[in-house]
Amino acid sequence: MITHQTQVRVRYGETDQMGFLYHAHYVDYFDVARTELMRHLGIPNTAIEAAGVMLPVMEVRVNYKNPAHYDDLLTIRTHLREFPGARIRFDYEVFRPTSDNSADIELITTASVTLAFMHSATKTACRPPALLLEKLRPYF
Amino acid sequence: MITHQTQVRVRYGETDQMGFLYHAHYVDYFDVARTELMRHLGIPNTAIEAAGVMLPVMEVRVNYKNPAHYDDLLTIRTHLREFPGARIRFDYEVFRPTSDNSADIELITTASVTLAFMHSATKTACRPPALLLEKLRPYF
Amino acid sequence: MITHQTQVRVRYGETDQMGFLYHAHYVDYFDVARTELMRHLGIPNTAIEAAGVMLPVMEVRVNYKNPAHYDDLLTIRTHLREFPGARIRFDYEVFRPTSDNSADIELITTASVTLAFMHSATKTACRPPALLLEKLRPYF
Amino acid sequence: MITHQTQVRVRYGETDQMGFLYHAHYVDYFDVARTELMRHLGIPNTAIEAAGVMLPVMEVRVNYKNPAHYDDLLTIRTHLREFPGARIRFDYEVFRPTSDNSADIELITTASVTLAFMHSATKTACRPPALLLEKLRPYF
Repeated sequence: MITHQTQVRVRYGETDQMGFLYHAHYVDYFDVARTELMRHLGIPNTAIEAAGVMLPVMEVRVNYKNPAHYDDLLTIRTHLREFPGARIRFDYEVFRPTSDNSADIELITTASVTLAFMHSATKTACRPPALLLEKLRPYF
Repeated sequence: MITHQTQVRVRYGETDQMGFLYHAHYVDYFDVARTELMRHLGIPNTAIEAAGVMLPVMEVRVNYKNPAHYDDLLTIRTHLREFPGARIRFDYEVFRPTSDNSADIELITTASVTLAFMHSATKTACRPPALLLEKLRPYF
Repeated sequence: MITHQTQVRVRYGETDQMGFLYHAHYVDYFDVARTELMRHLGIPNTAIEAAGVMLPVMEVRVNYKNPAHYDDLLTIRTHLREFPGARIRFDYEVFRPTSDNSADIELITTASVTLAFMHSATKTACRPPALLLEKLRPYF
Repeated sequence: MITHQTQVRVRYGETDQMGFLYHAHYVDYFDVARTELMRHLGIPNTAIEAAGVMLPVMEVRVNYKNPAHYDDLLTIRTHLREFPGARIRFDYEVFRPTSDNSADIELITTASVTLAFMHSATKTACRPPALLLEKLRPYF
């Protein structure tokens, strides 16, 4: 299993008139967190593209417990629990600070996003690129 | 049960570099479809607000089968299958045209979004506003 | 000169915590209005792409007078005042309803967006596609 | 004059089907840069709100020279050149890296955003909050 942590700060334009982070924007953040996990593993986006592979999203599930607000510095923990086959699934936990001491955080949202490996040229399902499998293997 | 249908056209800025409608934007569309269902039922947003109630989203689930593209005129079918209690759940089906004849459509995405009724002032759970229940009752 | 009018309804997720339509989203709407003007002229997007041309935005100017709100049905008037050369400039006026009678509207925003014609393949400047010039000529 | 620099990384969902950062998202980034400048000056958002003041955007001007791409780590330089009166204007320069050496950057976009000071309660124009003036004075 791999776990990686990144931070995203809520932008003004991402709030809604309830004064909360609008719920769809969490899905944007999950992409940010996934990109940072890939960078941490040493898998640049250009390498996936160069392998002729793209990764459309197949499933999104989000459970919201408490809202986030403008300028909150959110912590996103991304978990890759299973070695990928035709699909790869990331689980997410989003935390917000509960005081000015950034060590005090509460879990506000959990989610999972599942993507499929697809040949860019033919739009047909494919195996994960060799580079990805190689970088992931030591963790499983 | 209530079923209502609305249409949303994919904007240029909603595409991503795969050339597809970016997956998070479907979640925006579900809000559009819900607003139109409420308008159809004769429940203006101002009435919900005037009742001192807000509706944060508690859960989102989306399954993507096929992509949508720039300028596609999507059809969204919104289903309210259960009479609401503390929560209200909407199910969605998104269809895209498969030819210039708008009668030819294929199902590309299914989803559900669950919201909770909450007092705006106290941020505590509450019952649905009386107006909403009254408008929904004939359908169940 | 060409003038064309289209309508866009403000989405919940497009509001910000001031309770207004977030200012960046007007720029999205201008793309919607431009697409509808092109459709009205009989110039499908596919025709521009098929000509190997793309249209990156070079300049945006927006002046905001009054805010728009959730669920406002905005009217956008798009003006093409000059026959295009290497660039094409659209001017916009955004109106919001001031009562339930949709005939009562006030001007809330003015803007202009300038785009350049560019060869998709070489990313170099080019002349507007012949189809576009042909469709525009009768208006100038 | 005050100049402050911050960085924003382009998200996947912010690209469009040209493969570029969609032009409206720069406007989101300018808000991020302004928030960071304010934080650097020691002016928390909560202080502006607590003073009963809000800052709607009155004018946006953006000139695009070259595109940005997914995962580019952009540098945004924010300049406050004039001491604010009823309005406050920020000028922006956006740079993108031209090699893996982050020291090599090129200017891709320039912009200005002008905001007005407004009483939250009455929605009428007002003077800048005292805290803001106090923090800015040493720079002018």
